Amino acid sequence: MELDLSMYNVRTDLALEARDIAAQSAGETGIPGLWTESDSADGITVTRMEIKDDQAARQIGKMIGHYVTLEVPDLRQGDTELQDKVATTFAKEFEAFLNRIGFGPKKSVLVVGLGNWNVTPDALGPIVVDNVMVTRQFFELMPDQVSPGYRSVSAVAPGVLGTTGIESSDIVQGIVAQAKPDLIIAVDALAAKSLDRVNTTIQIADTGIHPGSGIGNKRKGLTKDILGIPCIGIGVPTVVYASTIVNNTMDLMFEHMKKHTENTDPMFGAFGKMEETERLQLVKEVLSPLGHDLLVTPKDIDKFMEDIANIIASGLNAALHEAIDTGNVAAYTH
Amino acid sequence: MELDLSMYNVRTDLALEARDIAAQSAGETGIPGLWTESDSADGITVTRMEIKDDQAARQIGKMIGHYVTLEVPDLRQGDTELQDKVATTFAKEFEAFLNRIGFGPKKSVLVVGLGNWNVTPDALGPIVVDNVMVTRQFFELMPDQVSPGYRSVSAVAPGVLGTTGIESSDIVQGIVAQAKPDLIIAVDALAAKSLDRVNTTIQIADTGIHPGSGIGNKRKGLTKDILGIPCIGIGVPTVVYASTIVNNTMDLMFEHMKKHTENTDPMFGAFGKMEETERLQLVKEVLSPLGHDLLVTPKDIDKFMEDIANIIASGLNAALHEAIDTGNVAAYTH
Amino acid sequence: MELDLSMYNVRTDLALEARDIAAQSAGETGIPGLWTESDSADGITVTRMEIKDDQAARQIGKMIGHYVTLEVPDLRQGDTELQDKVATTFAKEFEAFLNRIGFGPKKSVLVVGLGNWNVTPDALGPIVVDNVMVTRQFFELMPDQVSPGYRSVSAVAPGVLGTTGIESSDIVQGIVAQAKPDLIIAVDALAAKSLDRVNTTIQIADTGIHPGSGIGNKRKGLTKDILGIPCIGIGVPTVVYASTIVNNTMDLMFEHMKKHTENTDPMFGAFGKMEETERLQLVKEVLSPLGHDLLVTPKDIDKFMEDIANIIASGLNAALHEAIDTGNVAAYTH
Amino acid sequence: MELDLSMYNVRTDLALEARDIAAQSAGETGIPGLWTESDSADGITVTRMEIKDDQAARQIGKMIGHYVTLEVPDLRQGDTELQDKVATTFAKEFEAFLNRIGFGPKKSVLVVGLGNWNVTPDALGPIVVDNVMVTRQFFELMPDQVSPGYRSVSAVAPGVLGTTGIESSDIVQGIVAQAKPDLIIAVDALAAKSLDRVNTTIQIADTGIHPGSGIGNKRKGLTKDILGIPCIGIGVPTVVYASTIVNNTMDLMFEHMKKHTENTDPMFGAFGKMEETERLQLVKEVLSPLGHDLLVTPKDIDKFMEDIANIIASGLNAALHEAIDTGNVAAYTH
Repeated sequence: MELDLSMYNVRTDLALEARDIAAQSAGETGIPGLWTESDSADGITVTRMEIKDDQAARQIGKMIGHYVTLEVPDLRQGDTELQDKVATTFAKEFEAFLNRIGFGPKKSVLVVGLGNWNVTPDALGPIVVDNVMVTRQFFELMPDQVSPGYRSVSAVAPGVLGTTGIESSDIVQGIVAQAKPDLIIAVDALAAKSLDRVNTTIQIADTGIHPGSGIGNKRKGLTKDILGIPCIGIGVPTVVYASTIVNNTMDLMFEHMKKHTENTDPMFGAFGKMEETERLQLVKEVLSPLGHDLLVTPKDIDKFMEDIANIIASGLNAALHEAIDTGNVAAYTH
Repeated sequence: MELDLSMYNVRTDLALEARDIAAQSAGETGIPGLWTESDSADGITVTRMEIKDDQAARQIGKMIGHYVTLEVPDLRQGDTELQDKVATTFAKEFEAFLNRIGFGPKKSVLVVGLGNWNVTPDALGPIVVDNVMVTRQFFELMPDQVSPGYRSVSAVAPGVLGTTGIESSDIVQGIVAQAKPDLIIAVDALAAKSLDRVNTTIQIADTGIHPGSGIGNKRKGLTKDILGIPCIGIGVPTVVYASTIVNNTMDLMFEHMKKHTENTDPMFGAFGKMEETERLQLVKEVLSPLGHDLLVTPKDIDKFMEDIANIIASGLNAALHEAIDTGNVAAYTH
Repeated sequence: MELDLSMYNVRTDLALEARDIAAQSAGETGIPGLWTESDSADGITVTRMEIKDDQAARQIGKMIGHYVTLEVPDLRQGDTELQDKVATTFAKEFEAFLNRIGFGPKKSVLVVGLGNWNVTPDALGPIVVDNVMVTRQFFELMPDQVSPGYRSVSAVAPGVLGTTGIESSDIVQGIVAQAKPDLIIAVDALAAKSLDRVNTTIQIADTGIHPGSGIGNKRKGLTKDILGIPCIGIGVPTVVYASTIVNNTMDLMFEHMKKHTENTDPMFGAFGKMEETERLQLVKEVLSPLGHDLLVTPKDIDKFMEDIANIIASGLNAALHEAIDTGNVAAYTH
Repeated sequence: MELDLSMYNVRTDLALEARDIAAQSAGETGIPGLWTESDSADGITVTRMEIKDDQAARQIGKMIGHYVTLEVPDLRQGDTELQDKVATTFAKEFEAFLNRIGFGPKKSVLVVGLGNWNVTPDALGPIVVDNVMVTRQFFELMPDQVSPGYRSVSAVAPGVLGTTGIESSDIVQGIVAQAKPDLIIAVDALAAKSLDRVNTTIQIADTGIHPGSGIGNKRKGLTKDILGIPCIGIGVPTVVYASTIVNNTMDLMFEHMKKHTENTDPMFGAFGKMEETERLQLVKEVLSPLGHDLLVTPKDIDKFMEDIANIIASGLNAALHEAIDTGNVAAYTH
């Protein structure tokens, strides 16, 4: 059912946020099958993470695989120098990521921009596709004349089920069968739990794209099982669901009440243990009649989308083509 | 200060919502200086309202003046037949409104589209301006050749302070001095308290546009005092502020707690009386770091904006020009 | 070679124009393998044409097949009543066309919008796709609940080689393999010989889309041979190539000279017989340095594109779904 | 009359092209009241020109005043490094131009973007306005807190007569009366004679904007006489009129004939001296029915517009604010 109450729960597509939530629950026992490292420079924090086994995957609620997350709290300030640094860092991390999973500079790539052109916060994928440098046609039509240092890159924006009538996963599958790339890179807008993630965080993962992720109607996944080739996902949280805000509000009120009642009041006890279902029912009530699909966005979302899409397109261009310098990636798109 | 806590309160630009809130507070005493009448047909409810004196204005928190509100709960369904009916009803009500305040068919009009082109839910005014039929140039350049049944209409979208560096009110004032219209019609996107108002409600008011209304940064008003000519405002709620959702959540939780504690619990009493400041502080905390400017919008906002702007532009074209038939207004824009 | 001089010749994608040119050359002998009929009403002329054999195809320079052409000289006037009539006529003709080639109301359809979103006069296909009603997802996800009178329709805009790196024909082939439609309807912007055809003519043909047609870089065709299913092309001339204008100028000058020299002057004889190559060389020289890809467009092309795309999308919606009334097709898109 | 044959003649808004045409007619006598100097570096040629007296103005067909022209033949190649160099050169030349006419770094500026948003090649002005850094609001609202090195800049796009019903000149006049800038900078799309000028040439002039310039319907000028303050025009040719192409074709054919007849043939003599009126009548015939407003544009015009608008906006930001470094201007817009 579409009116599944789970749609009214806190929703995050970020492995980092999911890990933090899981770590809190796990307490001192921790999450054994999880490896993680982190470093910071120039206002950019890079966290590399591996979910190694099924148990860790279950605990965190994300797939087994590698995740790299860039966090740049000041990214929304419109500082173009910082944006250039983020593009460069992203390019380096992405190149390293490709190498780590064994994809050398000759492997051909299909960039897939998921999402809906006509819904601003969902348009990340299509905008990136519009700015990625495609080269496959030269490899097909005049292979002898391609300069060294370039690989074959193609790029498509398959649209969403509601506007094409076809699952984007099916469209990609059909195109893969024709264009025969070695690797898919799928770019998608994500939902975060926390407002400060919106357009400040970039996630890279080798787990493909899974049903229910993203903010559009993408019911079928883009995975190696389905496509026959690996799929790396690049995602940026561009929205928080209104339901998440409402849940956050409730949490904060519970905390607030705790402080005021010193946790001794019998009523609070009863209330604090409010059933999950009852709680989600309340969330649903707040959000009716427009329902679970309400998005919370900053007013300047249009400008943010353009900036972050440029960072990712520039970074991809530099990471995918050796001839493009990671030292000055921003110059290669507009 | 911009970080005024009042920005975290429930915010509505609709006189109808303000009246309902005031009526609830007033209880049985009611609001003496308020006149109101209402009729419904074809899924459209029209409410005509007059705030007659200062006391009513203070009670409701809206200016003395005439208000007409169209409520069309199904307007977001994409039913084009209903949209045509709404355009026709809007045209009739607007024409009657003009007559009521003494503006006959020869008076010249300047349509002002307030708001920011680049912020989807704030773009209502600019899109309407783009679709309104302008005729003033014919009256200026070849007055003898204008067919009967048309009046002089001009239209501008003055932009917002953040992108022009000039108050839109100042820009309009300058244009009025040059173009010398008899009347301003200002179209603006509004904020509502209730989610079900988003793109389903149209408000007409003869009170002009006042500081703090709308969802953009419009600090100075468009009023007869400033412009020297009357200003009719047409507004449609296109967003709810995230702060409103958070406040709604808190209200609902209080109610929920009331039921569960049967109002006898002493803690609830204390909590229920939470200070306004404390409450808004909580709201602020939920919405940090992105702050009070967060908007809640349905995912399909782009499409809704186009539809509602078409309704208003079509309706205006029919209401302003006798030669354009209110029976088939939709045909005159695209 | 891309710098093939033939790119500097008069170019038309319209069978009607090609027929007229061929008929002129043929003189009294005519074109035996050509059937044609024509009727006019309400300012709309419909011409149905069949190229029946190879010889006629060679003479005209267009494929064997059925062609229907709507000519509406006043279509650029912005008269919405006329636009509605054209949409209705188009819907009727298209429905009849489908029946004539044996495609009943149950056959599933994939609408393909060829061309480039980012090039205004080439964006016809993508805009139509954006406004076509898609239903395939309902047939897939809840076949029991689809109302009678609808057929399965899906729609994609595959982009162009220069921006995807993949032939649009290959992309469509891949999608056909997955979505398994019974029929392709390909919508494309065309080039005309005559300026008065721009956005006033609509062509329907059952010959598919062939290399070199259209105004974009579409090198591979959409034909039954390639796709395994039939492909109906819908095209509208949105541009004239600058080379065509230059050639037209030369023709007019020759004619003018003829009149002035009464065809007796020996020089004219020599000049009038100017070699084709020499002539195209002159055209090339006029158009250098920007070359053969220069387009001649009216200033208001953006508005025309929107209007004509709406007509085709509305017409398609009515023609494809029995439940949608051809009497009022315009209401079903926006 | 709108059907004035002069609309069918060669049309250029570039003083440099007008000078070249005049110089050719003048022959060895030259143009006495004209001063000119030129230098080239990095693929950019800068020509500084002064039309000093009425006679030179009449000979050239342009106003008395200062002109600076940047010619960058490779600017359409999409080379972002070259684009950055052009932005820097433009910034330096513009700053020098301001100094030469006595406008120091404290003078306030209103940037006016002429032209029509909805007509791609006419949208230069509005796009530049969208990317210019505006600061006037800070000077108005918190003058004490503005960092040194900035001046007061505001920016408006007044639209065109056909969509507002008001002359853009009147709108600007009204805004000037309110915002009280010291100087107007008007950005406008121009028409060139030569195709290789399209989006490769930038003109700066202190003569204001005059009726008949540009490609839109701007009938009234922006001049010191009308506005009371000086107006610097920045223009880029984005189109060639189709009539110009047709005239060019005729010229080339005459030349071609000359070569073939060795100028001895009596017929050619007669024909070569074809009356101006007769000639324009021929041009008109070629271009009917769409008339004199046909534009010739390269297919990629949308992308070119964005690139050149970015160059001008970046250059203006650096030239207008001392705090913004001309060494790296591109970083300050997006």
